[in-house]
Formats: sequence, C-alpha cells, structure tokens
Amino acid sequence: MFAIGSKTRMAATAGLIAVLASVAGGSPAQAQEATETAYIFNTLSFMIHGFLVMFMAAGFAMLESGLVRSKNVATICLKNISLYATAGFMFYVVGYNAMYMNVDGGFMGTFLPWAGDNADALAGKFDAGYSAESDWFFQMVFVATTASIVSGTVAERIKLWPFLAFVAVLAAVIYPITGSWQWGGGWLAELGFKDFAGSTLVHSVGGWAALSGAIILGARKGKFTAGGVHPMPGSSLPLATLGTFILWLGWFGFNGGSQLALGSAADAIAISTIYINTNIAAVGGVLASMILTQLVYKKVDLTMVLNGALAGLVSITAGPDTPSMGQAFLIGGVGGILVVIAVPLLDKLKIDDVVGAVSVHLVAGIWGTLAVPLTNGDATFVNQLTGVAAIGAFVIVTSSIVWLVLKMTMGIRVSEEDEMIGLDQAELGLEAYPEFGRGSQSI
Amino acid sequence: MFAIGSKTRMAATAGLIAVLASVAGGSPAQAQEATETAYIFNTLSFMIHGFLVMFMAAGFAMLESGLVRSKNVATICLKNISLYATAGFMFYVVGYNAMYMNVDGGFMGTFLPWAGDNADALAGKFDAGYSAESDWFFQMVFVATTASIVSGTVAERIKLWPFLAFVAVLAAVIYPITGSWQWGGGWLAELGFKDFAGSTLVHSVGGWAALSGAIILGARKGKFTAGGVHPMPGSSLPLATLGTFILWLGWFGFNGGSQLALGSAADAIAISTIYINTNIAAVGGVLASMILTQLVYKKVDLTMVLNGALAGLVSITAGPDTPSMGQAFLIGGVGGILVVIAVPLLDKLKIDDVVGAVSVHLVAGIWGTLAVPLTNGDATFVNQLTGVAAIGAFVIVTSSIVWLVLKMTMGIRVSEEDEMIGLDQAELGLEAYPEFGRGSQSI
Amino acid sequence: MFAIGSKTRMAATAGLIAVLASVAGGSPAQAQEATETAYIFNTLSFMIHGFLVMFMAAGFAMLESGLVRSKNVATICLKNISLYATAGFMFYVVGYNAMYMNVDGGFMGTFLPWAGDNADALAGKFDAGYSAESDWFFQMVFVATTASIVSGTVAERIKLWPFLAFVAVLAAVIYPITGSWQWGGGWLAELGFKDFAGSTLVHSVGGWAALSGAIILGARKGKFTAGGVHPMPGSSLPLATLGTFILWLGWFGFNGGSQLALGSAADAIAISTIYINTNIAAVGGVLASMILTQLVYKKVDLTMVLNGALAGLVSITAGPDTPSMGQAFLIGGVGGILVVIAVPLLDKLKIDDVVGAVSVHLVAGIWGTLAVPLTNGDATFVNQLTGVAAIGAFVIVTSSIVWLVLKMTMGIRVSEEDEMIGLDQAELGLEAYPEFGRGSQSI
Repeated sequence: MFAIGSKTRMAATAGLIAVLASVAGGSPAQAQEATETAYIFNTLSFMIHGFLVMFMAAGFAMLESGLVRSKNVATICLKNISLYATAGFMFYVVGYNAMYMNVDGGFMGTFLPWAGDNADALAGKFDAGYSAESDWFFQMVFVATTASIVSGTVAERIKLWPFLAFVAVLAAVIYPITGSWQWGGGWLAELGFKDFAGSTLVHSVGGWAALSGAIILGARKGKFTAGGVHPMPGSSLPLATLGTFILWLGWFGFNGGSQLALGSAADAIAISTIYINTNIAAVGGVLASMILTQLVYKKVDLTMVLNGALAGLVSITAGPDTPSMGQAFLIGGVGGILVVIAVPLLDKLKIDDVVGAVSVHLVAGIWGTLAVPLTNGDATFVNQLTGVAAIGAFVIVTSSIVWLVLKMTMGIRVSEEDEMIGLDQAELGLEAYPEFGRGSQSI
Repeated sequence: MFAIGSKTRMAATAGLIAVLASVAGGSPAQAQEATETAYIFNTLSFMIHGFLVMFMAAGFAMLESGLVRSKNVATICLKNISLYATAGFMFYVVGYNAMYMNVDGGFMGTFLPWAGDNADALAGKFDAGYSAESDWFFQMVFVATTASIVSGTVAERIKLWPFLAFVAVLAAVIYPITGSWQWGGGWLAELGFKDFAGSTLVHSVGGWAALSGAIILGARKGKFTAGGVHPMPGSSLPLATLGTFILWLGWFGFNGGSQLALGSAADAIAISTIYINTNIAAVGGVLASMILTQLVYKKVDLTMVLNGALAGLVSITAGPDTPSMGQAFLIGGVGGILVVIAVPLLDKLKIDDVVGAVSVHLVAGIWGTLAVPLTNGDATFVNQLTGVAAIGAFVIVTSSIVWLVLKMTMGIRVSEEDEMIGLDQAELGLEAYPEFGRGSQSI
Repeated sequence: MFAIGSKTRMAATAGLIAVLASVAGGSPAQAQEATETAYIFNTLSFMIHGFLVMFMAAGFAMLESGLVRSKNVATICLKNISLYATAGFMFYVVGYNAMYMNVDGGFMGTFLPWAGDNADALAGKFDAGYSAESDWFFQMVFVATTASIVSGTVAERIKLWPFLAFVAVLAAVIYPITGSWQWGGGWLAELGFKDFAGSTLVHSVGGWAALSGAIILGARKGKFTAGGVHPMPGSSLPLATLGTFILWLGWFGFNGGSQLALGSAADAIAISTIYINTNIAAVGGVLASMILTQLVYKKVDLTMVLNGALAGLVSITAGPDTPSMGQAFLIGGVGGILVVIAVPLLDKLKIDDVVGAVSVHLVAGIWGTLAVPLTNGDATFVNQLTGVAAIGAFVIVTSSIVWLVLKMTMGIRVSEEDEMIGLDQAELGLEAYPEFGRGSQSI
C-alpha cells in the first residue's frame, strides 16, 4: 500500500481542516463538494508547481552550458537531460518509498517501488487531500534538482557513466534517507527541525554531494597553478543568464508548491506570500552581490550576480512562509554576500567548482536553514544546527564512499588528454558549436 | 452556431457527470455552484495546458535552430514563428469548424470561420462544461504543433513562402479532415480507434507531411554522396537541448490538457497520472537511446538522446492515461530505440530529414498508437492499425498533391547557389550570427 | 493599512457579484464556501499569470541579448536581471502604495512601503476577493516590464549604475503616478479612459522613457554617418527569437491576468477570450510585417517580424476583452505595419533605438489605446487621446528631468573608447562569448 509522507500529510491536512471548517453547518453533500473542490485545487497546485520545478532542469542545463567552455558544452547538456531521467527513474524504483513509506520517526523508509493508488479518492473519499500521482510528480522533480546541483560543480573532467551512477545512488538512497528524516516524518521532524522547501534537504544535500565529488575528483588541469588561479571563463553568458531566469521562475514552483495545498483561502494566501518572499529574496541576492562586487572589485561580475540571485533563492527556501518582505530581502541579501565571499574562498582551498554550485547551494543553504529561527518562533537555532550537521555528515560520508567506489571501479575522471581536447570530442565524438566554437583548440 | 466537437464533448461530459453526481441531494443553487466551479476548472485546464503547448513553438524553434547549420538559422527561426501564425490563422478561418462542426460520424466538418459563443454559460447554463474560447485555444496550438514538425525535416533547402503555403493548407484542410475522423466524432471515433492526445492525429500527420515533403523536395546538396552520408552537424547543441526541454515541458500540457476537463477529482487524478506517465515515457526514451547508442556506436550521441526523449514523449501520447508507470517507461523506451534505428535507416533510403522529425514523430507516433491496446482494453490492434493506415494514406496523398502543385507553380526549392550560401543570406539578406558564425563560408 | 487599488477592486468585485448571485438562495455556509472558492481562483489567477509575466524578464533579456553586438551582451544581461531586481524592490518600498493607496480620483497615492495584510481573509471575510500578496506580485511584474522596455533602446552606450538609478525613479515615482491616474482610481479612471492591461500605462510609459533616454543619450558612435544609417546587426537571432516567444507566452499572463479575477464562469470566459484575442493580434502582427517587408524590401526581415509580433501584442493590450477575433487580428496587423514604418522613421530622425522598442511599445501602444473605441462602446476617442497625451507629456517631462540630472551628476554615457571596445570589457571586465565572439574586435 501507498503511504503518504508526514510532510505531505501534515500540511495538506491543515488545508483540508480549513476547508471543512468553512462548510460547517452545510449539508453532507455540500461538505463532499467542498472537499472535492479542495482536492482538485491541491492536486492542481502540485501539477502547476511541479511543472515549474521540472523546467528547472532546463535552467540548470542552460546555466551550466553557459558557464563551461565550449569544448564541454554538449557533454554538460547530455548530463543534464540524462541526470533528470536517471534521478526520476530511481525515485520511482525505490527512492520515493524509501523517503515516505513507514518512516515513523525513524531513519529511513521502505525501499520499494512506488505504486500510486487513488482508489479512495475515486470512491469519493477525499481524505488524502490530493492525487497521489501529483504528489509523486512534485517530489520527483525535487530529487532531480538535487542531482542537477552536482553536475555543474564536477563538470569538464568527470566521465559520463560514473557520474550517472552517482546520480542513481543519490536519487535512490542518499537523498531519500535524509529526506525521510524530515519530510518523511523521521527523527528530525520529531525533533522540530524546520526546512520548508529544502534549503538543507535539497540544496545542501546537492551541495555536499558536489563538494565531495569536487574534492575526490580534483581540480581541472591548469586551474590552480603556481601563478595563482587560472580563470576559465564560461562560453556563453546569455545562456547562463537564461538559465538563471528559468531557475528563478521554477523557484515559485519549488517554494510555492511546498505549501502542499491550495484548497483553502489560507493556503492561497500562504502561497502568495511565499511567491513574493521568494522573489524579493532573489532581488536581495542580486542587489547585494552587485554592490559588493562593485565595492570590492570596482566592477560588477555578471556570473557573480547570477549566482547572487540563486543564492538569494536558496537562502529563503528553508522558510519562505514566515518572514516579512523586508526580512526576506535581507535573508536573500546575506545569501548574495556569502556567495561573493565563498567563491574565492573555495578557490583558495583549491576546490574546483566550475559553476559555483557549492557556494550557491551549500553555503547559502546552510545560511538559509540557520536563519529560520529569526522569523519562525517554532524553530530553534540548536535544532536547525542539528539538522544541518546531521544531514551534512551523512551526505559527506555516503557521497564520498560512492565517489571512491566509483573511482576504484569504473574510474571517475577522464584522461588528461581527453580533458585537454574536451569531453565533447572525447566522450561524445562531436562538438557543441562545430562552426564557431574553437572546439578542441581552446583550453 | 458553434458546435462543440465530439471529442471535447464526450470527455468533458464525463467530468461533469462526476461533479453533478457528487452534489446529488444538494439544493439547485448548490448544484449550479458546483457546475460553475467545474466550468472554471475545465476552462482553466485548457488555458494552462494551452499556454504550455503554445510554448512548444519556442521549443521547436530552438531545437531546429540548434540542429541546422548557422547559415540557415535565421530562416528556421522565421519559419517557426510564421508557421505558428499561419496555422493559427487558418485554423480560425476554416480549420476548427472543418474539424468539429457537424461531423456526425462522417469524413469532415463544415468549412466555416470559427465564432466563439458562450451565451449559454453567461446565462447561467454550464452544460458545455468550459469556455468555447479556451477549447479553441487548446485545439489551435495542436495544429501549430503539427505544422512545426514539418519545418525541421525540410529545412535548409525549402523556400519560405511555398513552405507557408503548405502550412496553410495543412492547417485549413488536411489536419482538420483527419482530425474530424476521430476528435470531431467521425468514422474512426465510431469504429473505436483510440488516440488520446494525438500520436497519430498530430505527430504522425506532421510526420507524413514532412516525409512527403522531404521526398519531393530531395536531399540537401552534398548530403548523400558516393562516399556515403555526409554529416552536417547542427550549429548549437545547447539550443537544441533547450528546445527539447521546452518541448518536454509543453508535453504536460499536450497530454494533460487532452483530458479536456479538470472539474472533478477523477479528472485531477487522470491528469496527474498522465503527467507522470508522460514524464517517465520520456525518461525511458532518454535511457534507452543512451544505452543503445553506447552499445552500438561506443559513444553516446547527444542529438540522438534528445530525439530519444522526444520519441518517448510521442510514443506515450496515444495513451498516456491507461498504462502503469512501468508500462509507460517501456512504451517510451521502445520509442527511444526506434529512433536510433530509424534515423540511419532514413539515411540509407536517401531521405534527408534535417532534424530527425520523421523518425521521432512518425515512427514513434505509429508505435505509440499501436501500443495502446497493450494497456487499454477498449482498444484493438485492428482498429489502431486501421486508423494509422487510413490517416497515413490520406495525408501522404493530399500532402504530396500540395507539395507537387507548389513545386509546379511557385517552386519549392531554392537554387543550388542559394543553398550553398545559406537561406539566411539568400532569402532574408542577413546572418543569424553575423559576428561569429561562418555564415556563407560554411557548408 | 493596505488599500486595494480601484482597478483591482472594481474588477474583482464584478467577479464576486457573479459568484454570489449564483448561490442566491443557498445557505450562509454555502455562500461562504462559494466565496472562498472564488477567493482561491482569483488568487490563483494572479499567481499563474504573475509568473508568466515575471518570465517576460527572461524574454526581454534574450531579445536584447540577441539584438546587441556580442561585445555588449553580458552587460545587457546584467542590466536585465538588475533592472528586474531594482524595479521590484522600489515598487515594494514606495511604488505600489504610490499607485494604489488613497488616490481617490486624484493624481497620486501615498508614498509608503507596501505591507500586505490578509487578516480579513484569514478571519473568514473574503470581500477583498483575493490575496493582497498575489495582487502585489502581479502588479510588481508589470513595473518590471515597463523598465525592461527602456533597457533595449538605450543599450550599447549607457553606463550601468545611472541606468539603474533611472529605473529606480521610474519604478518608485513615474510609473506609479501615471498608473494611479487609471488603475489606482485617479482622474483618468473617473474620466472614462480605458486601458485594460496597459498599452499606455505600461508600454507607452516605457516607450516614452526610452525615447527620452535615447535622445538625451545620443546615438551610438558610427550609427548615423554622412553615408547614411550604418547597420549594426544583432549577435544572435535565435536568442532574439526565443525572447520573442517567451514574451508572447508571457502576454497571456499580462493580458489574461488583467481580468483580475477567475472566480466566476464569466471571468473564465473573459480570460479565454483575452487569450485568443491576444494570440491572434500577435498573429496579425507577424503576418502583416512579413507581407509588408516582402513587398517593400523584397525580402522578409526576421527582426522586423519579431518586432511585428510584439507590436501586435502591444496593440491589443489596451482592449483585449472586447474585440472579436477578426477585429483583434486587424488591430494587431496594424501594429505590425506601424512597426515596419516607425523603425526607419526613427532612423531618419537620427534617434538610435537599438532593439526597436520605441516603435514596438510606444507607437503600437498609442495605436492600441486609440483603437479601443472601435470595439468598446464605453470608450471614446477623445478620452483615449486625453489619456495618451497626458501620460505622454508627464512621462516625457519627468523622464527627461531624471535623465538630465543623471547626465549632469553621474554621467550617463560611457567614454568613446569604452563604447568602441564594448561595455562588457569596459564596464564588467569580461566577455559574453570569450571563445567565439569577436569581443573587443567587433564594431
């Protein structure tokens, strides 16, 4: 049987209670009608917000295509479409139920294929509040997002198939286990950890996995030299900008849909509030990173501003429902500042993160999670830190094991020669821009 | 007067019956309220899913821009925006009513301009179930999709205006006639043919029209030489990837909206089911085409994987509502395999399909239509084959006639010299990438 | 306290009345349920249509990226994301309330920070009809659109920070004041001026601001020479095409959402009607500009067709609700013709509008506003002209003052040398396409 995760159950129930309360005094037929209307609204919210998050896959693909060199662009495109496919497939095979089935305050669910079943709803019982399929869809696109975070960091030197093997384990095991601790109703949820839409559960998890990969994989040849950090500018900043805008759009789905219900006026108000807080946090990230780069470097760096926008979005994701707009602006603004500090810091540590994903998703994800108690009385700093640390430790250890096993078996890094000529030619035998990219000539 | 097509009427009625049943026992005012709520939901579904399908025009434009050479990119952009305009205009002028008005089990409707009229709904009668305008919008974007399929196949050598003339006839006559057989409530619908969202009615129709065009037009100069097939790689694989993601997104509208109603919980469940089946069929197409190209060619070909994703989507389109997710995955996976086989096969037959649209939309469209009986007890293999054959025969014959008439009158192919310097310079007098494409220098 | 603007209040009330009427005779609980359902629908409409309009920021970014030369592409991307941030922030700080609070038939509202408050709705009173946050979101993306119009015209020679300073004043003062005259319930609304979704209030305002900027800033070096107009073709027509499609998609939100309600069947019908009229106006713009350029220049110009589509969309924006589809087609078609005439005319006047935004947004915006009385009996030509003239005069004067103050203080134009090497290198210190753009070598 299909079990709805605690995350989904708790929030949707709140929506339903509001609906049912509003019809108190009405006839049974009327209550049923109200319930069915709420059921449709809730399901529709998962569908609309789900397709927005699905489209974030295109956003990551464009962002990363724009930020790698032209000799690796086709490969990063292939990785982005195939990681979405792999993650979604594994989440269907075991991930979803590992995250949501029979967690009961514990440390993981039951690893079994997902099988949707809306028999109750079809029989006129609307207690679940929404279609199980719509919930699966919405949760699936989240795991795909987590995997997308990894691809950018380890770009330009990782082999295709080992990368996908990592994604498969991430989507089938690592993400669902940490996810079960909170959204599956596990021990962190019982403790009182708060992570509304996944600053930690999605973004930090992706960030830790990316960081482990970057360290184990090593930096690109020529990135860190005796003479300092060698810049390797991305091949197409308009595509990177497009990707950022697509991600920004998708974030309305990411955070808005995490209300998990639209069946009452209270839900509609909550989602609207989440929309404007999400938006102004990104605005804060843009403005803060712009001003800071202008002050420090005397020039504004476009890629830093794009990452500033994303850092603002990641920062607000743990708690987009409770801040005022002014608070959301500040939370996002700090995220934008952190990314400007973190990117050169990683360079100093000789950790090669091609697109800045660790700075954006991990650093801002931690900040966003720790910031929740500032605006949410139900959250405590200690609980937030516990969640961040526990999930961080688990993901670092498990990711590192997977990366190391892959390294020892399939090998994870292309040869030095292949890296030089570019993965497109070496791994795919083609060029992304055969007519005007410098292809294999560029370093 | 405006007549709602059988397709739309039948499905929407099912939704309404569910709604009305759920309020049995309520007061008349309550029933009216329930009906109006369903009316809004049904209309909203057409609007949301319609704008997703509309955006597929951008997906085709980017896919095709990425897969043609830089000297033809501006022309393919122009064709994509103008075919959307032409198809939509002709569907308004005569196409819609030719497809839906007074078909009554026959072979075509009445060729008359569409004129929306929601007087009944405005007077408080909600029997139609949804706004006529929203239905027109949703059906119009389907004919635009059909026309988009053609442009990619015949790219890089067809003249602009004759191409648009073909699109005009396709949207005004050919597509509406075959559409009337099924969705207009014509003879195929009465026979029991099943094509939920148009594997045959949209994708195969576009594919047959493209195939006829490719044959009559002939291959690009230099494509098939004594030395074998000369590869002509596309100019921008990230744009092709973006186009694929946009099409994938649009397919939630394409298949989900074809439920034609959202006014009951049963509809919401159906659309959710369609979403996840559509998604996992594309996943199957991606993974199958990746694995097969790796096994056969020892390298993964990005363009083949993009087409694999699309083939998975086309395959599930005839019946996204009945399979389990596992079945949908397999149906899409077979689509992905078929495209890997079909693309070189067409090359062997010296049929020059620039973007692989015939393999994706026609081959996978036939497969998807024939696969419906595997999961839908109401469909039979014989009926499915009848529909595929009848529509195929009709479209081949009529398309060929149109192409040939155009060839004899306006001429359909640019001169050899124009083809060499590229259509952008020859037909438009400009370059798509004046600063870095090789423009007229590239072959 | 938060005051809902007259624009929003009036239209939403109409929707609510319809809903309430439909439940006449029902129990109080039933009426409340109906009202809550309408409240959710209305809010959902703002959310969905709002995110579509938000995504227009990506459309403008791509359109402008494609139409400037590669040496200025990164800068235009940066301007587009930072203007969205700046405009949204200023609209929160003072703009929204300046437009909607206490206007009462006058000339401006109260300049105070916006503070959403849905306490009434949360207490079960649904009179407002929708969540205040969703309304803010929808109105905010409109001011961002207005600012986006300016960036394209003044591209390739304006300094980054003074440009953002102008945007800040536009979003905080100029747009809200003229907006208050009509949508805030000011003197133009009382007069009977009609501008459904903003042909004048958004597009002409942006166009006038852009025109003032272009004149005060002067033309790009080398644009107008003794030998005539020197063409400076855009760097990527597929990105310009993508931008146009994204804007077209966004316009369903722009015009459809301006119904401001979805809580009744009448609203659903109205929005559907708006969708198809908006679409076919763009179709008219495409076909008219294609045919005219073919006749006049013997070649179709892709950039003119893209602008033709946008001009069609701008033209219908003042009144997308009242025309028949045929009328909407003609209104959009005239817009497409106007843009083909206006672009060379501006060149003759030596006004350098890099992307054609003045022709598209100002010229077609005026036309669209004046065309309203042709299909809307409540509008008069005199009132429309009054609105166009009053808003035009106000925006020209105030914009010019702001541009001139900025010119005298910060300076608004980069040095001749910086213009030559390109703003990307000069202002940002990077290249948009470091591997294949000609970067600083191109003029």
